[in-house]
Amino acid sequence: MNAIARLFKPRSVAVIGASGDPSKTAGRPIAYLRKHGFSGEIYPVNPRVESIDGLKCYPDIASLPAAPDVAMICLGAERAIAAVRELSQRGTLAAIVLASGYGETGEEGMRRQQELIEAAGSMRILGPNTIGLVNLTDDIPLSASGALEMEKFPAGAIGLVSQSGGILGALLSRAAARGIGMSKLVSTSNEVDLELADFIDYLVDDEATRVIALYVETVRNPEKFRAACLRAANAGKPVVAFKIGRSEAGARAAVSHTGALAGADRMYDALFKQVGVIRAQTFADFIDIPAALASGRILKGNRVAVLTSTGGAGTLISDAMGVSGFETPAPDAETAERLRALQTGDEAALDRNPIDVTLAGLKPDLLRGAINTLLASPSYDALVIIVGSSALAMPELMVGAIKDCLPNSDKPVFAYVSPHAPNLAALLNERGVPAYVAPESCAAALDAMLQVASWQSPAVNGTKAATVSVSDVPGGSLDEAQAKDLFARFGLPGVRETIVTTPEEAIIAAKSLGERVVIKILSGEITHKSDIGGVAVGVPAAEAGARLTAMIAEVKAKAGFTPTRFLVQEMVSGGTEVILGVHRDSLGTGILLGMGGVQAELFKDTTLRLVPSCGELSRDDALSMARELKTWPLLDGFRGRPKADVGALASAIVAFSRMASQLGDKLVEAEINPIFVLPEGQGVRAADGVAILGE
Amino acid sequence: MNAIARLFKPRSVAVIGASGDPSKTAGRPIAYLRKHGFSGEIYPVNPRVESIDGLKCYPDIASLPAAPDVAMICLGAERAIAAVRELSQRGTLAAIVLASGYGETGEEGMRRQQELIEAAGSMRILGPNTIGLVNLTDDIPLSASGALEMEKFPAGAIGLVSQSGGILGALLSRAAARGIGMSKLVSTSNEVDLELADFIDYLVDDEATRVIALYVETVRNPEKFRAACLRAANAGKPVVAFKIGRSEAGARAAVSHTGALAGADRMYDALFKQVGVIRAQTFADFIDIPAALASGRILKGNRVAVLTSTGGAGTLISDAMGVSGFETPAPDAETAERLRALQTGDEAALDRNPIDVTLAGLKPDLLRGAINTLLASPSYDALVIIVGSSALAMPELMVGAIKDCLPNSDKPVFAYVSPHAPNLAALLNERGVPAYVAPESCAAALDAMLQVASWQSPAVNGTKAATVSVSDVPGGSLDEAQAKDLFARFGLPGVRETIVTTPEEAIIAAKSLGERVVIKILSGEITHKSDIGGVAVGVPAAEAGARLTAMIAEVKAKAGFTPTRFLVQEMVSGGTEVILGVHRDSLGTGILLGMGGVQAELFKDTTLRLVPSCGELSRDDALSMARELKTWPLLDGFRGRPKADVGALASAIVAFSRMASQLGDKLVEAEINPIFVLPEGQGVRAADGVAILGE
Repeated sequence: MNAIARLFKPRSVAVIGASGDPSKTAGRPIAYLRKHGFSGEIYPVNPRVESIDGLKCYPDIASLPAAPDVAMICLGAERAIAAVRELSQRGTLAAIVLASGYGETGEEGMRRQQELIEAAGSMRILGPNTIGLVNLTDDIPLSASGALEMEKFPAGAIGLVSQSGGILGALLSRAAARGIGMSKLVSTSNEVDLELADFIDYLVDDEATRVIALYVETVRNPEKFRAACLRAANAGKPVVAFKIGRSEAGARAAVSHTGALAGADRMYDALFKQVGVIRAQTFADFIDIPAALASGRILKGNRVAVLTSTGGAGTLISDAMGVSGFETPAPDAETAERLRALQTGDEAALDRNPIDVTLAGLKPDLLRGAINTLLASPSYDALVIIVGSSALAMPELMVGAIKDCLPNSDKPVFAYVSPHAPNLAALLNERGVPAYVAPESCAAALDAMLQVASWQSPAVNGTKAATVSVSDVPGGSLDEAQAKDLFARFGLPGVRETIVTTPEEAIIAAKSLGERVVIKILSGEITHKSDIGGVAVGVPAAEAGARLTAMIAEVKAKAGFTPTRFLVQEMVSGGTEVILGVHRDSLGTGILLGMGGVQAELFKDTTLRLVPSCGELSRDDALSMARELKTWPLLDGFRGRPKADVGALASAIVAFSRMASQLGDKLVEAEINPIFVLPEGQGVRAADGVAILGE
Repeated sequence: MNAIARLFKPRSVAVIGASGDPSKTAGRPIAYLRKHGFSGEIYPVNPRVESIDGLKCYPDIASLPAAPDVAMICLGAERAIAAVRELSQRGTLAAIVLASGYGETGEEGMRRQQELIEAAGSMRILGPNTIGLVNLTDDIPLSASGALEMEKFPAGAIGLVSQSGGILGALLSRAAARGIGMSKLVSTSNEVDLELADFIDYLVDDEATRVIALYVETVRNPEKFRAACLRAANAGKPVVAFKIGRSEAGARAAVSHTGALAGADRMYDALFKQVGVIRAQTFADFIDIPAALASGRILKGNRVAVLTSTGGAGTLISDAMGVSGFETPAPDAETAERLRALQTGDEAALDRNPIDVTLAGLKPDLLRGAINTLLASPSYDALVIIVGSSALAMPELMVGAIKDCLPNSDKPVFAYVSPHAPNLAALLNERGVPAYVAPESCAAALDAMLQVASWQSPAVNGTKAATVSVSDVPGGSLDEAQAKDLFARFGLPGVRETIVTTPEEAIIAAKSLGERVVIKILSGEITHKSDIGGVAVGVPAAEAGARLTAMIAEVKAKAGFTPTRFLVQEMVSGGTEVILGVHRDSLGTGILLGMGGVQAELFKDTTLRLVPSCGELSRDDALSMARELKTWPLLDGFRGRPKADVGALASAIVAFSRMASQLGDKLVEAEINPIFVLPEGQGVRAADGVAILGE
């Protein structure tokens, strides 16, 4: 058993600095271990106390009869460091450091944290600043969370890794009150050693865990996180994350739009999406989605039957389903016939949806018949049963009827509990029927099941593209021609263009580029050329010289310098403008695709992917990026337009990601804005570009 | 006291068809009246029973000792009609008809419902198909809702009108469990007589009610609803609605885009917005928003202090605030100084936000000091206090400390309860501190308070515009020239244009309209002119004749007929295209404004207002419509564009609404697509239009 597995299931636990007063934080760990029946050895350590709750108390670590598997350290930040050193030397496998006052408090704390790491040596550390962990599978609480005051915690299949201790306590108690079973809960907090990915890995291997829930403040090690999440996905264990920091302003790049459009939170969205992590949008969903996934049932489509004995709540659920894109069709003729056959002579509506069995609460056989009929019906992929006030009087009858039907199908069966009835909801959850009190969470949970069902491991390119030579590319801020030359080396075609310095050269260049041309000043320093009169579009070729002369004057007047180099470019027409950019932050390198034009900009119609460690985005990634744009129809033949060359766009995205990957940290910023996507078969053309390389 | 007021506070209640078995629906009304201590007369009526729970039971209505103020009718649908007739004849003021089997079940039920209405005469009817009403102010339950099995219902300031009985029960029990006090609850269901607006009016006058909550399936009488809601808003009683039917497909119009863009649910959005009704977006918000508003506290800005003793939940709330557009700034220097002065020698972070008072749960004086400091601080408009596990052990201390501080400020003070602690949450609510368990609802409630604070009664035009003569406008589907002529009569200028029939006329017309022109076929039948080659844009004036000849050939080839009439129009340039349409459904007449262009169409960037009964939209309405567009910056000088003539656009919107109002049902459909909004001072021009008039 490795140290992490042993951390969850120690044979012996030392509590350093234990207090005999269970109302104090330092008194809780032992109180909770005893309360929940931990059967291993407990070694309290405290020089000022003889015994705690009948357990012999040791004056110091040295006097312990044996090296404990795990130590919980209840000392203050400074003293904890010495204890960690001693424990490590004695051969303890892992220590849980509860104290705060480390890296989270500033410079002095950061120094302390460094000392702690050094003191630990090869011993694993959970924390510091952690509330510990709770192993519900084996009834082992190694935690000071006040939530453990509750009497009963149903063991189940949801494993939680939380970067906040308070949130661990909130979820532990909230799930227990709802009858939702969890397997393991751990709070990682400062993560000086053990971190998110370590515990994801552990939970993938943990037999009791079927769903992994993550409360994320920051991912410190994206590559490790990515690998662990992919491992979970491939093992069929869904990962659900709640991530805060959603309102943080995106890092703003100086030159390109990409930085403002990408933003820290969107990078997380991309990361989660690419490794199959389902993001809970509300805190309630963060319990409700795992509860649904823990049922292990499979959602194969979006048609939901709503079975109700109370009209109002049935309609409420149907409506929430509709808002989330689910369908609630009426039963097919055969299903309707079978429903009608169940009941004689009353007016309940059995051939609509919601399917209204007014008296079902009082007639479990009718309820059982209706549930079985709907589960067998080819019209439905899932069933939501409304529990109304009528069930309050006889919860076991209702819950029993539902439970009896579960083995007859693997379709999801949910309950929505309309009145306040926490015991009934808990009973349902305990019997394997996810029970909801929020219509929106019920829909979100079904939606998550659909996401899980449609998850596919990311395609990995088998052959790695050859390295492109860039040794002769200058450093610093490239001018437009240099930037596009760089892009072209990776396979991103630019518009035809010529560098000119005089009106005469401009005329000659223009005549070779078509009837009308674009003229721009060329400079690595000026990035907003059009603001200073440095761009002219649709210039007749014959007038190129005069226009260039006028441009020199205008730029001089507006910006106070005389431009000496210019680009004369072909005019591209009939294409759809998009923008392609690179955004880099602590999570990695993001490739951003956006629709061009002011309207799309106002709607921030962009999509983002992180470049994976294999070095480039896959073609599938690139295509799905394009299809995710809200304005995708503009590329797909909207209103009789010609279809755009999406294949070439995908190649461009892949090429751009390859460039970002190969250049790595050397690439400070890069953006193509716009890149024209021409009609099918005609490719793409980069018409303007920005690149900043580290010197 | 009028009949509705008496319905909530009867001196005597007859229960027709009462059962002595309280487990049966017909047994519940008397059981609940007794249980909750109704002090008036109760007359059970049932020929087969001598007495119920010690009350003399009467064999029929005729034998009652007096006409009851109110009767609850527990008979089936057919027999209820006879009872209603008898009760009305005896002079009963109002009857509550519980039975279903009326209008909601189809044709036969509709006939029964009509009979019921006739039988009632001047007696008021609640229902049928209702669960009744509950007056918590005076402990009078006139309802069969199983939710009344609960022992305790805190009386409070929230009045509920629900079109569903099941939802009434759900809210009654959910609010009670949370310690949220309600005043009156009524289920209107089929609304054969008393309806939503009647009860809104009643609750506006009800002293105990401070907030009105509406569960809406459909508004049957929009004008009455509008008037009642405006009355509530002007009385300072916020109205909060949860409306289902959000996923219904919009009614699709044959010709214009407006129908598809407007949609039934968007009409409700417009209605609610215009009468100051706050729409709850989730079912949880539907309790949580009224609970906040019932506190009567006032939110004057968007800066929120988060006071916490547990880091994780504080960050969670800050994040939810940020997502909803609230700010959580750090304390100003003076506030930070005062916070630091409260506590000595520990490391709690008092000069950040969330403000972390780690030990506050154990030190009520510190908590009191921090709360008072934050309430007095000029940096904050509201305070959210996080209640963590530490408060579980001493709820009264924590709740007491908060409550003590309330009188010192009228800023909103909310609590967020992080662990499962229903008793603590209930205690907080009961003491006047809205307590939340969902971070998102906490933010939604603050947002609703901002909406209430910024509500302004709609401006009403003092002078009514003169009626425009339209007697000579033909019926049916107008051609483009006729449609624009109609619009122009109401003050909507069109582009300059001439009707021509020959190439020669086209050339002459074109030359008077500028260098380049637009040519279109003119027909009342063909509405998608461009699909059949019937539109040419940017035609040089000299080529107008040839282009017209070519158009005739193309239309003939594509559509199989020979066009004979054409419009030659000026080319408008430099304007921003918008779309203006009329949408009509059971709620009334909606005016839709949308940004033009394919991208805005894909984003459905539109805004909608209902034309009020005074006959036209106000200028303020029109301006706020324009500003609500996500693409509003395009009209407002985005990226150095000239500002658009928004004043002229507002005039156009008002004119369009006036037209829709005057034409009323005669106007089947109308749309201007596009209307060019020119730079400031240059007005607007309708460039194409559709109108269908009833014959």
